[in-house]
Amino acid sequence: MSLQMNQSLSVDCAVFGFDGKVLKVLLIERRYWKPDGRLDRLKLPGAMILENETLPEAAYRVLKEATGLENVYLRQLEIFSDPQRVSGEELAWINRYHGIRTERVVTVSYYALVKLDPHTVAFTTAAGAQWVEVESIQHLAMDHKQILAAALSSLCREMLQSPVAFELLPRKFTIRQLQDLYAAVLGIEIDNRNFRKKILSSGFLTPTREKEHGVAHKPAQYYTFNRSAYKRAVREKLRLGFINNWKY
Amino acid sequence: MSLQMNQSLSVDCAVFGFDGKVLKVLLIERRYWKPDGRLDRLKLPGAMILENETLPEAAYRVLKEATGLENVYLRQLEIFSDPQRVSGEELAWINRYHGIRTERVVTVSYYALVKLDPHTVAFTTAAGAQWVEVESIQHLAMDHKQILAAALSSLCREMLQSPVAFELLPRKFTIRQLQDLYAAVLGIEIDNRNFRKKILSSGFLTPTREKEHGVAHKPAQYYTFNRSAYKRAVREKLRLGFINNWKY
Repeated sequence: MSLQMNQSLSVDCAVFGFDGKVLKVLLIERRYWKPDGRLDRLKLPGAMILENETLPEAAYRVLKEATGLENVYLRQLEIFSDPQRVSGEELAWINRYHGIRTERVVTVSYYALVKLDPHTVAFTTAAGAQWVEVESIQHLAMDHKQILAAALSSLCREMLQSPVAFELLPRKFTIRQLQDLYAAVLGIEIDNRNFRKKILSSGFLTPTREKEHGVAHKPAQYYTFNRSAYKRAVREKLRLGFINNWKY
Repeated sequence: MSLQMNQSLSVDCAVFGFDGKVLKVLLIERRYWKPDGRLDRLKLPGAMILENETLPEAAYRVLKEATGLENVYLRQLEIFSDPQRVSGEELAWINRYHGIRTERVVTVSYYALVKLDPHTVAFTTAAGAQWVEVESIQHLAMDHKQILAAALSSLCREMLQSPVAFELLPRKFTIRQLQDLYAAVLGIEIDNRNFRKKILSSGFLTPTREKEHGVAHKPAQYYTFNRSAYKRAVREKLRLGFINNWKY
């Protein structure tokens, strides 16, 4: 038993990345996995929290270790506190792996969004992690499939309500890339022309002078996200609500 | 040390009620309080979670014990995980009170909204709890003042965005009561005529045939909250968002 480690509380992070075609999540192989297949091999990055850190600190620590990144878009999701969420062999694995003796672990789940640039991909791959297409995942260790589902559903909701999509794209992107991202995450087909019209009329995209090069089709223009235009619009929108516009 | 009780995790609940004039919160006296005043006497209802329950189950258990109520409007707030949030004499109090030996406690905070009907007031008073005007509270045990502040700020935000106010009012209420509630929680003055016009035009209030009786002024009409009209409007509003109305 480590005095440093809390025996009851962990954090688990679903780290999403977009490779231009599909939505991926970062998975790590768990150590002491039984090769007879009685335990699922892959899991989300996570850790028991340390006694001297807050939950967000623990989550950022996990992210740093898994991705090498420090300023990551990170949001807390649900707390998974079912007393049986890890039990039997899974619980035995946790106790063995951490050298602790606990009867239950409550986990606070997070989701993170990272840009899949070559540096980050190289770091994660060197660390033995892998980027797996979310759609293809059938099983994960413990209740991590359920945590992933919660993270994905939160990402879908967030992408419809706020501009988190840009956390997954390079700083300069084409409208087609943005559309492909929405289509991949939401699992829908999106009408090109309508999407283009809507997103441009939002005023949230600033055209750059750059265009794609080395592509077979007509080179598309690169845009950047205009965060200050977005913030202005949000301030405007905040005045709306259940009861609004009454004179104070 | 109890095998039943988790040593690391607690829940704390800010239970709000409205007496028609001011916003109140339910406080309990803590046992083993030192009369020399070195520890604050009053705290929010809370408990260490049991090993066989989820966090929401623990929160509902605390609420049932504190108010006698089962179907309470309850929402999770932040997790307070500062390693130093209870320390020194406060930590010693927790260990003594629960007969445990922990070095830190992470608490998940909740806020609840109850109707201050005579039955509920009688139950809480008989249980030794007290309804205290939120505005008047200077200190609370541990970091409960901070938890209360988070709960209050969440309540303000919720009241502007969703119809939670009706959880604090009797089923039938006057528009004046609703306005007084908004004014009390938000700490603002509200223009009568404008509020009345806005709230009636929302379509969310259904007039009843009843009016106040035994009042000195002109008796006001009672209304009920039309939850289905509200839900319809929300479904409509959900179609709006960051990017909306494109054709799938």
